[in-house]
Amino acid sequence: MLIARVIGTTVSTIKDEKLVGRKLLICRPADENGVASGKPYVAIDTLDAGVGDLVLTAAGSSARQTAITKDTPVDTVIMGIIDSLHVDGETTYRK
Amino acid sequence: MLIARVIGTTVSTIKDEKLVGRKLLICRPADENGVASGKPYVAIDTLDAGVGDLVLTAAGSSARQTAITKDTPVDTVIMGIIDSLHVDGETTYRK
Amino acid sequence: MLIARVIGTTVSTIKDEKLVGRKLLICRPADENGVASGKPYVAIDTLDAGVGDLVLTAAGSSARQTAITKDTPVDTVIMGIIDSLHVDGETTYRK
Amino acid sequence: MLIARVIGTTVSTIKDEKLVGRKLLICRPADENGVASGKPYVAIDTLDAGVGDLVLTAAGSSARQTAITKDTPVDTVIMGIIDSLHVDGETTYRK
Amino acid sequence: MLIARVIGTTVSTIKDEKLVGRKLLICRPADENGVASGKPYVAIDTLDAGVGDLVLTAAGSSARQTAITKDTPVDTVIMGIIDSLHVDGETTYRK
Repeated sequence: MLIARVIGTTVSTIKDEKLVGRKLLICRPADENGVASGKPYVAIDTLDAGVGDLVLTAAGSSARQTAITKDTPVDTVIMGIIDSLHVDGETTYRK
Repeated sequence: MLIARVIGTTVSTIKDEKLVGRKLLICRPADENGVASGKPYVAIDTLDAGVGDLVLTAAGSSARQTAITKDTPVDTVIMGIIDSLHVDGETTYRK
Repeated sequence: MLIARVIGTTVSTIKDEKLVGRKLLICRPADENGVASGKPYVAIDTLDAGVGDLVLTAAGSSARQTAITKDTPVDTVIMGIIDSLHVDGETTYRK
Repeated sequence: MLIARVIGTTVSTIKDEKLVGRKLLICRPADENGVASGKPYVAIDTLDAGVGDLVLTAAGSSARQTAITKDTPVDTVIMGIIDSLHVDGETTYRK
Repeated sequence: MLIARVIGTTVSTIKDEKLVGRKLLICRPADENGVASGKPYVAIDTLDAGVGDLVLTAAGSSARQTAITKDTPVDTVIMGIIDSLHVDGETTYRK
């Protein structure tokens, strides 16, 4: 999984029919301190995450292992909202 | 999923028989503002996307979760055409 | 899928038994003009492609969606031989 | 598989229900000497690994081939804790 | 598939039970001349490859398409030992 910051939303009228009503969020990869950088990607939301949240995303066929994403053409899912990160005994991020 | 700009088309006579009649579009990865850069890749089109469109592409086995791509040797599919992108409360792209 | 140039061949006597008799071609990733650069990878050929051809390769489980590659330990397949590429209304490559 | 150093832990209350009670560890990719560098990723732990351990992680659908991760939306699993690494006849790492 | 040089071995006592007795080799990606460079990865051996061999590795779910790796949490397998490489009519590597 990748740590990522939710930075925005996408609007798409023409899309695969299984995705109607689903929220597709723009995520930027983040490091162990929650600092985001680099090229963004888009993940389907199954947890009601919001812009600004630090999340965990799973990619590939693993993204289809939720009730919402089963059999859908999505390759990345938000599977956790991060409360805090801890590295070498220190708290590096807290929501 | 990746945000990408459709920049062109491929013509291929000799191809896997399941792909006859399918449109294979050249896509360049784009950022959250819709600005494309970097090495292109090719995605199968299931939504009648056109050159110039900003799209969402899904990769891997997820690309085979549509009626058109089921059981075909394709690893990337256009699964949404983007109307608009919104980052930190601002509209960064509108079709 | 990636656009790639076939640059060579591999010879391998000791290999998974399902791959006996199969052609494993060395491919270099190419851009939308057919210009190849970067680190090569190896794809199984199912279309009788030859050195010098510009091809499309599919990766991951999608590489196993052909009669020849079903249930074999290969992760990349040549699924199309490119006749021409067209970008922004111009022909950027013709075989 | 990748060699990686476990550098920390994540806390996530809101997550896919199949992941309740599971440990999600922050890993940094390492080289053949066990020296870690680069952007971290998160793996589910099935072996009671701890911070500081050098581990092997498997990604993609392979991450779901354990009793704990079956049918869960995780794309990376710790599938081995490394005792030692040996390169060109020399021991480059020992726990 | 990637061309890679086997550079070493890993020892891991605590690992997924399906991997007991399996050889996990450290591989460094190589180019079309057999010259290895870059960050190493680890592949399961099914062909009795040895340190120094140039091999082909398959990744992802394809790595589980052998009798030895079926249903195991491994994402990379050595599926061929390379005898020779040929690029543009010249032999660039011979074992």
